[in-house]
Amino acid sequence: MKKFAIVLSGCGVQDGAEIQESVLLMLAVSRRGHDYRIFAPDIPQRSVINHLTGRRTSEQRNVWVESARIARGDAKDLAAFSARDYDALVFAGGFGAASNLCDFVDKGDGYSVIPEVARAIREMRDANKPVGATCVAPVLLAPLIKGVELTLGNECDASRAAVAHGAVHRITTHGEVTVDVKNKVATTPCYMLDATIAQIADGAEHLIDELLQLM
Amino acid sequence: MKKFAIVLSGCGVQDGAEIQESVLLMLAVSRRGHDYRIFAPDIPQRSVINHLTGRRTSEQRNVWVESARIARGDAKDLAAFSARDYDALVFAGGFGAASNLCDFVDKGDGYSVIPEVARAIREMRDANKPVGATCVAPVLLAPLIKGVELTLGNECDASRAAVAHGAVHRITTHGEVTVDVKNKVATTPCYMLDATIAQIADGAEHLIDELLQLM
Repeated sequence: MKKFAIVLSGCGVQDGAEIQESVLLMLAVSRRGHDYRIFAPDIPQRSVINHLTGRRTSEQRNVWVESARIARGDAKDLAAFSARDYDALVFAGGFGAASNLCDFVDKGDGYSVIPEVARAIREMRDANKPVGATCVAPVLLAPLIKGVELTLGNECDASRAAVAHGAVHRITTHGEVTVDVKNKVATTPCYMLDATIAQIADGAEHLIDELLQLM
Repeated sequence: MKKFAIVLSGCGVQDGAEIQESVLLMLAVSRRGHDYRIFAPDIPQRSVINHLTGRRTSEQRNVWVESARIARGDAKDLAAFSARDYDALVFAGGFGAASNLCDFVDKGDGYSVIPEVARAIREMRDANKPVGATCVAPVLLAPLIKGVELTLGNECDASRAAVAHGAVHRITTHGEVTVDVKNKVATTPCYMLDATIAQIADGAEHLIDELLQLM
């Protein structure tokens, strides 16, 4: 049985983790007979968005506390993550990956990744263990893994920013995974494309399969 | 292609809809080539619970607005639901079903269902169309469908309250569905039992299959 650490960035596509991608990554791991644990950083969300109107509210929410909703309360502080305990590290997508786990949304090409995320990725690299990401979350990898090959679906602001950090961007469609064998990185576009939930499930399953191959 | 209306009660098992059940019902419908739409009532949540600590906070949240997180913004007000437009109506579980969609949590056996939910269920009954529910959400059916046969997993406070309203309770285990053919009702225990996410997916799939049989 392999152990996956899945990192969330809140609870809701517009200001946190994309909920469907998060759940379907968990399902893909469980259906293959493996185990997962949910992590999130103990930091304030950059914003809280009313998902009906798309408008920012005056509320304050915490990334770890909101991520625990998806995990039924069982979420760990990302500061407690150790690569020793896991066989793969996976980042779910959603706007929170680009706004809470890094500052791409505010800084554009000059973005950087929060220390908790940078440390987790570096530890996995040092341990020669694979890292995966869905949707916009691959932007987290570009500043930390020089020349990493990844996908953000079609070309877009996020792919250009990743390329500005030295990444190689591959265009992909529904359910496709870009695998960088040398760097042990697997990425899939999920909701970077207009997709059905069944296509998101395909992407999550293929991503987990590729990460298992990279172990 | 059949159309499912899926009713949520917020976003998070402790004060709203159980997120994994909600997503996996959507996936089961989509994977079978059918269509769904998400509904939720435009009402305040009874409470907001910090899912890490299990403690109530002073925040105020709205059931419809929070449900829209699971639906990626595409959620309709339950007041706009019409049985004419759907082939089945499904209620996802979570504490919100027992505290936002009815007052079981406060009133126990003497609970009643909010008007928007009662109207939706009655309309489906009048149209002879099937209704489904997961986890604790079957309690919503007991006051409205006399003698309905349903499951809440093992015997528990919720099953006793449903029986007090004239329901017949069936004990079930993971992935099992109780089908009341006469009343066109299908229910499955999901997280009323200690379960893995893969077992929740099984329950959601079997429930959708039974609802398709009842059409």
